[in-house]
Amino acid sequence: MYQALLFDLSGVLYVGDAAIPGAREAIAKAQASDMEIRFITNTSRRTSQQLLKDLRQLGFELQDEQLFTATDAAHQWLVQQQLRPYCLVHSNIQSEFADLPQDDPNAVLIGDAAEDFNYANLNRAFQLCQAGAPLVGIGYNRYFKLDDELLLDAGPFVKAIEFAAGAEATILGKPSPEFFKQVLASTQAEPEDTLMIGDDVYGDIEGALQSGLSGCLVRTGKYQESDGDKINGSFQVVASVVEAVEYALGN
Amino acid sequence: MYQALLFDLSGVLYVGDAAIPGAREAIAKAQASDMEIRFITNTSRRTSQQLLKDLRQLGFELQDEQLFTATDAAHQWLVQQQLRPYCLVHSNIQSEFADLPQDDPNAVLIGDAAEDFNYANLNRAFQLCQAGAPLVGIGYNRYFKLDDELLLDAGPFVKAIEFAAGAEATILGKPSPEFFKQVLASTQAEPEDTLMIGDDVYGDIEGALQSGLSGCLVRTGKYQESDGDKINGSFQVVASVVEAVEYALGN
Repeated sequence: MYQALLFDLSGVLYVGDAAIPGAREAIAKAQASDMEIRFITNTSRRTSQQLLKDLRQLGFELQDEQLFTATDAAHQWLVQQQLRPYCLVHSNIQSEFADLPQDDPNAVLIGDAAEDFNYANLNRAFQLCQAGAPLVGIGYNRYFKLDDELLLDAGPFVKAIEFAAGAEATILGKPSPEFFKQVLASTQAEPEDTLMIGDDVYGDIEGALQSGLSGCLVRTGKYQESDGDKINGSFQVVASVVEAVEYALGN
Repeated sequence: MYQALLFDLSGVLYVGDAAIPGAREAIAKAQASDMEIRFITNTSRRTSQQLLKDLRQLGFELQDEQLFTATDAAHQWLVQQQLRPYCLVHSNIQSEFADLPQDDPNAVLIGDAAEDFNYANLNRAFQLCQAGAPLVGIGYNRYFKLDDELLLDAGPFVKAIEFAAGAEATILGKPSPEFFKQVLASTQAEPEDTLMIGDDVYGDIEGALQSGLSGCLVRTGKYQESDGDKINGSFQVVASVVEAVEYALGN
């Protein structure tokens, strides 16, 4: 039996605007159990407040404190390091960094900037990193699913700037061990008593395994048939979050 | 003494619209020597015809057959492989691929597309590769210099799509050994009798060394002080193409 369950959001609880069938009930069942529940996401097109609203509109029940986002982790880190970031992030989450000085930037933050990933903005990020500014990434997520389409996430753009500038990014969301540590610090659970449930075999599952957690890959969201073979280590693969919760409950 | 000299173009003979001081005379001297001269470039913002015109307008003397471009190599390869490419390349060179079928693409070609590197186009390239289309890159060039600014070249975008789709690109320009082989096949020279002169420590110098050529890095164009330490192997570093030609002539 696990003491804590960590749920990824997009692709696990919903895809686009639609909840995964049975996901609401599965989360309610998990919340009613003795396990501690957290929701952890690298999604960087929505603020934490927007995500909480989205989840509740979809009928999911959760406390504000149960949600951990890579965006918040990145903000916290930039504040701690007293950096002035150039934020190549989605227009929806620019507001989250408005308290930081951004003139004369000495750091680069890359999230899922969507249409703002253009040549001019990517050149700006590159030129700053080439001149020595640290590169901060929300995650290495390769792609996500929206309206039956796979779309590029922040990861490929982080990799592009790393390659161009000969730099290595600091990743603030999954699969960073610090991020998993921060989430677990809010619970009573040890890594070995914790199950990460996600649709991203790298960020969710490989990341969890590398931090000593167990992993459960769901066949929803961005899941592809070959995903089971892409990483080393042992993990569960189940049809959806419904079966994942049943598995965690020992049913 | 070398039997053949290979010159990179941008950053070696010119930067932007301006010839490197002394470069015209250096090329004239090399052309008048017993050595065979070739010009080889991954520049993919101009067609071969445009490049020849540019070079002659800048006062450089060369024969059409002395110029080898990654764009031409890519075109040749796509024809041989009978592929229908989605061409994410600069609008200037789209015409070079107009003879290939491009509806219902089953391959992706990435050159230096400049402003056409946008989210929609990159998603299209990614989705095709994710579905199994081979990825073809002009080169892995990281950046180039234009008007005192370093700008992203094709390489970082090739890397981004490789990472996103879990694919490996076929590179048709430098540092591909096939490209160096193709250039040398047009001469009487063996690799060990050939000197590559370039400003890109990876594409020009490391690529040349890996193909058994000698390398001479010039301190013009995109050259950065730390470049000498970035690769393994032994190579010359000189002030400019003027000194490179003198070195090749044994002066």
